[in-house]
Amino acid sequence: MKNKADIAVAGLAVMGENLVLNMESKGFTVAVYNRTYARTEAFANGRGKGKNILPASTVAELCDRLERPRRIMLMVKAGAPVDELIGQLLPHLEQGDILIDGGNSFFKDTMRRASELGKKEILYVGAGVSGGEEGALHGPSLMPGGDIRAWEPIRTIFRTISAKAPDGTPCCDWIGPDGSGHFVKMLHNGIEYSDMQMIAEAWNLLRHLCSFPPEALADLFEAWNRTELESYLMEITSAILRKKDPGTGAYVLDLILDSAGQKGTGKWTAECALDLGMPAATIAEAVFARCLSALREERLAASKILPGPAVPKAQDEKGFAESVRRALYAAKICAYAQGFQLLRAASREYNWNLNYGDIALMWRGGCIIRAKFLDDIKRAFAANGDLANLMFDPFFADALAKAQESLRKVVASAAMSEIAVPAFSSALAYYDASRSGRLPANLIQAMRDCFGAHTYERVDRKRGEFFHTDWMDSGSVSATSTNYNR
Amino acid sequence: MKNKADIAVAGLAVMGENLVLNMESKGFTVAVYNRTYARTEAFANGRGKGKNILPASTVAELCDRLERPRRIMLMVKAGAPVDELIGQLLPHLEQGDILIDGGNSFFKDTMRRASELGKKEILYVGAGVSGGEEGALHGPSLMPGGDIRAWEPIRTIFRTISAKAPDGTPCCDWIGPDGSGHFVKMLHNGIEYSDMQMIAEAWNLLRHLCSFPPEALADLFEAWNRTELESYLMEITSAILRKKDPGTGAYVLDLILDSAGQKGTGKWTAECALDLGMPAATIAEAVFARCLSALREERLAASKILPGPAVPKAQDEKGFAESVRRALYAAKICAYAQGFQLLRAASREYNWNLNYGDIALMWRGGCIIRAKFLDDIKRAFAANGDLANLMFDPFFADALAKAQESLRKVVASAAMSEIAVPAFSSALAYYDASRSGRLPANLIQAMRDCFGAHTYERVDRKRGEFFHTDWMDSGSVSATSTNYNR
Repeated sequence: MKNKADIAVAGLAVMGENLVLNMESKGFTVAVYNRTYARTEAFANGRGKGKNILPASTVAELCDRLERPRRIMLMVKAGAPVDELIGQLLPHLEQGDILIDGGNSFFKDTMRRASELGKKEILYVGAGVSGGEEGALHGPSLMPGGDIRAWEPIRTIFRTISAKAPDGTPCCDWIGPDGSGHFVKMLHNGIEYSDMQMIAEAWNLLRHLCSFPPEALADLFEAWNRTELESYLMEITSAILRKKDPGTGAYVLDLILDSAGQKGTGKWTAECALDLGMPAATIAEAVFARCLSALREERLAASKILPGPAVPKAQDEKGFAESVRRALYAAKICAYAQGFQLLRAASREYNWNLNYGDIALMWRGGCIIRAKFLDDIKRAFAANGDLANLMFDPFFADALAKAQESLRKVVASAAMSEIAVPAFSSALAYYDASRSGRLPANLIQAMRDCFGAHTYERVDRKRGEFFHTDWMDSGSVSATSTNYNR
Repeated sequence: MKNKADIAVAGLAVMGENLVLNMESKGFTVAVYNRTYARTEAFANGRGKGKNILPASTVAELCDRLERPRRIMLMVKAGAPVDELIGQLLPHLEQGDILIDGGNSFFKDTMRRASELGKKEILYVGAGVSGGEEGALHGPSLMPGGDIRAWEPIRTIFRTISAKAPDGTPCCDWIGPDGSGHFVKMLHNGIEYSDMQMIAEAWNLLRHLCSFPPEALADLFEAWNRTELESYLMEITSAILRKKDPGTGAYVLDLILDSAGQKGTGKWTAECALDLGMPAATIAEAVFARCLSALREERLAASKILPGPAVPKAQDEKGFAESVRRALYAAKICAYAQGFQLLRAASREYNWNLNYGDIALMWRGGCIIRAKFLDDIKRAFAANGDLANLMFDPFFADALAKAQESLRKVVASAAMSEIAVPAFSSALAYYDASRSGRLPANLIQAMRDCFGAHTYERVDRKRGEFFHTDWMDSGSVSATSTNYNR
């Protein structure tokens, strides 16, 4: 074993442990540290036994055990624990050392830390790590961003341990400055929320409006996974639908409480969309759907009070299932369009100069939203690096042209039955509003001008000229309205 | 004129000026101050001429001109200007003096300021002021919250200048501690966003799917304003639909650009909902609809690329219009249900102990969302002060039972044509998900457990017991999964 380690991992929860084992299995010597040393020892004598792993009982010892420049990956809970650990490490670091935060930190925290540490010539990296525990162990999707000078020293390790796309390309590349890596990881998770919600809506429609037995439903999702929808989440869905509880013989899914949890990255994505004024409504609906699912007691009470229609089964069940599949594809395109629209807005706002196609490529392996589909996104951005909306790319425009009719039918069927499809219907509204040259927002502007003299622009005048109408002929506010609004 | 003023207003933009004139007209002497003295002079010699208004050129002079305890209302832009003005005023204030922020401050800023000033024994009030310029002048809805000791000294002025409900009750009452007044104002605006978006969607459906000429459409909205939908926003909508441009003879509405602006309170409401995990999805959709409307260049480009269906007119136009009216009513109930659900969550989170019925009453006059409907909300909360959801109240449950069928038809019609109805369809999804005893969130939990070992609860076990399944029979992560999740 080498005396000095190639890299350190601080924080030995499962994600940290699995990353260590991944690195070690690829030939790297890894120093490890955990706040409670007992955990470090348990790991060193357990899963890490007999491996090129150097346990450290203090941060000083951890720093001492590293080649220079030091490469230290923090795998602790986002928030204050990251700042605390950085504070503990700092006295033992030197200029040019590299700190990598591999947790799900909020990108603005990463921007702040990158700026503070940059002044001390510590190279700070915020790295998105996707793929869950399995990914960490066998190959995650890695999205590092921050001080570009850190990329050369960490590139080999990162690209070696990362997942590989079907064509062998490592699912890891440099994202951009400061918080961009964590932003991209957050966005990945936001998209993941909408993917999961839409699959759940599709399944819910099929189980309520068709009579497929569970195994036939599982077969259906397995077949869908051989179409444009091919993806990791589709793959696990069919496995989930088949899984039986050994104890009761029941399908496990039927035993699971219908209250979804969340850890915050979906919420952050929706909040960033609101902050940047980008219409990522479908991602937000997926987050709100989880919120509503968590209000289970209220739902059970409401189910006894609030009526719905009688729900007849679909007449042509196979035909309806195919419509749901197409609707899912169309809705998925809309959600990804929102995601990349938001990414582009963030890249402009924070001067990140992101390469959207490369980001799509990084998601092809290792991560939760990995899908064949991402190759098409890569192609779209290869053809036009500053594509304003994925839906404008000829491939996706054509796919939507073919699938939009199914999305309409499915949303209408859901509305007439009692199946809530917040993500599907939000995606359809996004599609139709995005392609409308004349939204009813003029009425909203008229109202705002009427009650608040907020003024409006006119279709027959140039942008930037503002007009006010005395709508109710009150005569009282128009004279001063411009002062109020600027 | 008195030597000393009853109250001061600092900040003489239109809202500030109008509040001053309102106060003065009710017999109060008002000291006024503006950062630029020229503006103060212009006001004193203009709209304020010959009135009981004492202009001050400095904050010191302003403080000197006030009865004690001093009552100073800040009418400046939310954010840093409020902190700056407070900093300038502080040296001239004494214990027991009262500062009232009448701007649209974010409630967490108000919480911070209330806490800081409380330590100095300055009584801080965050007061929501609604009703726009007209309201400020003739009677706004006022929602003060903060240091309860300030209420007695400001009550008479506030309730005198406020709007009066149709039964004569002042639209002003004490909301609760620290930031609660500003939270309630923010929520009012969030609800206002959804009200406006839903009216716009209703109008958009009618103009595209029916052949009513503009005057007939205006008549329709005027007639709707004599139903359950009676409200200020309905009233101005029919006036707006009738308004012609004197220059061109065209309807003004047709000249207005379809890009809606926003000033942030709707966005804050959606962000608060996300933060508190409350499903205010319809309010969020209204905010996102404005965001999308602002991307006008992209929409125009998309309108040439992305296809939609042929849109036939409704067969029974009068019948369809009535369905739209009922749908609007149902969707409005759902949006208000979301708003009050969020308010209740905030009241619990921040220990505000709010009276939801009284808050509904305060909105009956003066403010933008004033409506007959609010009396029904008041009645609902009078019957059950801790009602978990407005939809559970018998009156609203019955109203929804009658109107839900129309909401379904309208959402389905919109889906099959190309009319985006993000708020209508989100409201319907909220209705159906809220009354579902079995959402597909179990599939989401199964996926989360599959890729991240996030565990799940079971329907046949008590809450708080967590289970994990090795879904893909990989055998690798289950042993340690609990550690990862807690």
